[in-house]
Amino acid sequence: MTQKPSIPKGTRDFSPEVLNRRNYIFDTIRQTFVRYGFQPIETPTMENLSTLTGKYGEEGDQLLFRVLNSGDFLSDVKEPIANYRQLAPKISEKGLRYDLTVPFARYVVMHQSELVFPFKRYQIQPVWRADRPQKGRYREFYQCDADVVGSSSLIYEAEFIQIYDEVFAKLGLPVSIKINNRKLLQGMAEKVGQPDLLIDITTAIDKLDKIGPEAVRAELLARGLPAEAADQIGAFLGLGLADLPAFFADVTVGLQGVAEIGQVLALLAGLTLANELQVDLTLARGLNYYTGTILEVKAQGVVMGSIGGGGRYDNLTGGFGLPGMPGVGISFGADRIYDVIEALDRFPPTNAHSTKVLFVAFDLAAQQFAMPLLRQVRAAGVNAEIYPDPAKLKKQLDYANKKQIPLVVIIGSEEMSSGQFTVKDMANGQQFKLGTQALMEYLAN
Amino acid sequence: MTQKPSIPKGTRDFSPEVLNRRNYIFDTIRQTFVRYGFQPIETPTMENLSTLTGKYGEEGDQLLFRVLNSGDFLSDVKEPIANYRQLAPKISEKGLRYDLTVPFARYVVMHQSELVFPFKRYQIQPVWRADRPQKGRYREFYQCDADVVGSSSLIYEAEFIQIYDEVFAKLGLPVSIKINNRKLLQGMAEKVGQPDLLIDITTAIDKLDKIGPEAVRAELLARGLPAEAADQIGAFLGLGLADLPAFFADVTVGLQGVAEIGQVLALLAGLTLANELQVDLTLARGLNYYTGTILEVKAQGVVMGSIGGGGRYDNLTGGFGLPGMPGVGISFGADRIYDVIEALDRFPPTNAHSTKVLFVAFDLAAQQFAMPLLRQVRAAGVNAEIYPDPAKLKKQLDYANKKQIPLVVIIGSEEMSSGQFTVKDMANGQQFKLGTQALMEYLAN
Repeated sequence: MTQKPSIPKGTRDFSPEVLNRRNYIFDTIRQTFVRYGFQPIETPTMENLSTLTGKYGEEGDQLLFRVLNSGDFLSDVKEPIANYRQLAPKISEKGLRYDLTVPFARYVVMHQSELVFPFKRYQIQPVWRADRPQKGRYREFYQCDADVVGSSSLIYEAEFIQIYDEVFAKLGLPVSIKINNRKLLQGMAEKVGQPDLLIDITTAIDKLDKIGPEAVRAELLARGLPAEAADQIGAFLGLGLADLPAFFADVTVGLQGVAEIGQVLALLAGLTLANELQVDLTLARGLNYYTGTILEVKAQGVVMGSIGGGGRYDNLTGGFGLPGMPGVGISFGADRIYDVIEALDRFPPTNAHSTKVLFVAFDLAAQQFAMPLLRQVRAAGVNAEIYPDPAKLKKQLDYANKKQIPLVVIIGSEEMSSGQFTVKDMANGQQFKLGTQALMEYLAN
Repeated sequence: MTQKPSIPKGTRDFSPEVLNRRNYIFDTIRQTFVRYGFQPIETPTMENLSTLTGKYGEEGDQLLFRVLNSGDFLSDVKEPIANYRQLAPKISEKGLRYDLTVPFARYVVMHQSELVFPFKRYQIQPVWRADRPQKGRYREFYQCDADVVGSSSLIYEAEFIQIYDEVFAKLGLPVSIKINNRKLLQGMAEKVGQPDLLIDITTAIDKLDKIGPEAVRAELLARGLPAEAADQIGAFLGLGLADLPAFFADVTVGLQGVAEIGQVLALLAGLTLANELQVDLTLARGLNYYTGTILEVKAQGVVMGSIGGGGRYDNLTGGFGLPGMPGVGISFGADRIYDVIEALDRFPPTNAHSTKVLFVAFDLAAQQFAMPLLRQVRAAGVNAEIYPDPAKLKKQLDYANKKQIPLVVIIGSEEMSSGQFTVKDMANGQQFKLGTQALMEYLAN
């Protein structure tokens, strides 16, 4: 009995049309990374579980895909097994890459003697998470990351903002680029006398956009803040950058945050960005991880979560025995970017990657005749095919139509003797005759 | 305690230099596939084990990497477990892609209603095999395949030979492209009265290159062939294509093989190939799989196994319930191609993907001054960086040297006031001054 084939839930096949569009996004990002001096690396799909576990919190550990050891994976399991949590580490040593950051940190430590610091790398590879699949959330998806390690210079923040600006300008997507700094949030929590509630405070104010100031205030109170502190936070969120030095007059870390954002903006002052850059004091993504600048990108004109994010961290590689390695990086959310471009209908025609001309022949002699011509056309950089069988013209034209091939060149006995080939424009049905030289010129346009 | 990081055996990190070279190979192959009208697809890294098992023989099943089910993978294991072979199917439903052919067959069946046949797809993705790692053999490696399904036309054989020829010409690697046909081997086994020993015969003659005719004859006898049959086979291997019609006078399948090879060569007759194309009657790769044409590519001038291979098959999708789907395809061995290009020192300089110019600044004011200039340079398509810190000139030049950045532009106070920038050519140490316009023109070359 044959099986009806399927693929694992949360995974996808990519058809040519979708893949060409995805590659257009990846190529645009990649090209911009390279323009800014980033170099590609790739790390293995499987990492040792000792590299991965404990890096993503308890929830992350649960979402790792584990690979069964090869051969007799039970040979070392001697005592009775109480449950799957006990068994898993005994029968699986490897897991699938969960993100690109931990493998990058592992890479930097393993290759530190070969690297030139500051080391600027980009990485575009799939990652896997055993999340519950739902619309827009997959178990296999690509991440597109660029990071610099080994420097605390804020010039990289300025460059990452430019990279976001350029990539989304090239993709034809108007976005808002938001910047904040963990030091401002930390300073604010100190200022209101609640440094230990930083996470609670930022979790609440992160929702300002969605639930409004009243509900944020209610949540702050519910999380145990005194009313006075909640009011001060409300006031803080209404401040502009120019008001912050006074607000932080006696809070060192807050003033550092102000200086850092100020320097990033100063570095960008002489440039005209295509997209708006906003200081957003509510922005708090990945707060446990980032230690300075925080960046986020949102698409304008569509309802959608962030399509990019990043920030500065102080200690990327500490978990692998290399402390004091500062860095900053950004990530592009390729799946969401795809959905936004599609929603706005901004994908360019994908003709660059599809066939431009189909040669049509009616017997072996015509096929033989067509081969050198076809070779010449391809050598000129034109994507070309020949219909494989001596089928009726209608069937061959059908193939061109279904594959959206815009031009057909007909090689019949008359064409072979005259050297004048019939060209058919599939869009308007017009036919005309061209000699070899004229045909080459026509196709090259 | 911190751990010393490592990666699973048989896997690799790819550094920028190596990755740029690998991508040069992939890009060359991809570009040629597209020129011939092939379109990309991608399939998931994980496939259901029901898709994979039983497709690669017993040895292949042993070499599959299995992924542990998520969550409590023991919840359905009720009875006691005798051994790992019994347990494995109960705790793992998914495996890592083992090759690109089976996922492609699965794809064709699942998407048959959307596809236009003949369907021409290429696929460049990693695969995983739990093989014992050794020099040149990895547990994660890329395959680069192109296939056409839904046509028996030999024009595709002729085009695949051209694709091999063009790709290796572009890569600067002289190769021998070998062609054979399973029907010739089958006809030969019939002719010598031993159709049931076809596999034994081809296994022996496949070694002719390595062990010579005497040893092949000895192996044929050892495998149970009568001396007369072994002699006839020896004679067969000495025949040219022109001799084969007479040899196969009464063997239909042999004559079919002759006609097929003849037609492929006829289609190529009007073309000048860059590489030699040889009919090789000893070629028998993948005999259990291929039903017609067999192709193989060997590099000239280095000792190395085949760097490409392929052939025609009659029934790609039968295992998934779609019988009668003929096809033909080829594969490139990217890792071996890399090794050959390296051995012959034919990699082009990778400057296209690395930084061309480093901007050097000594304070924040100079950095600010540099930013618009840098943006202009990048907008002109030049890969450019700025050194992130106001370090001493020597340190900044060191960075350029180590990263092999050929040009440095120095932005000092004098340069800012005069608008004349000092350019340093790192190859010869020469310095000269250029204004903005002249600098842009200089960098664009």
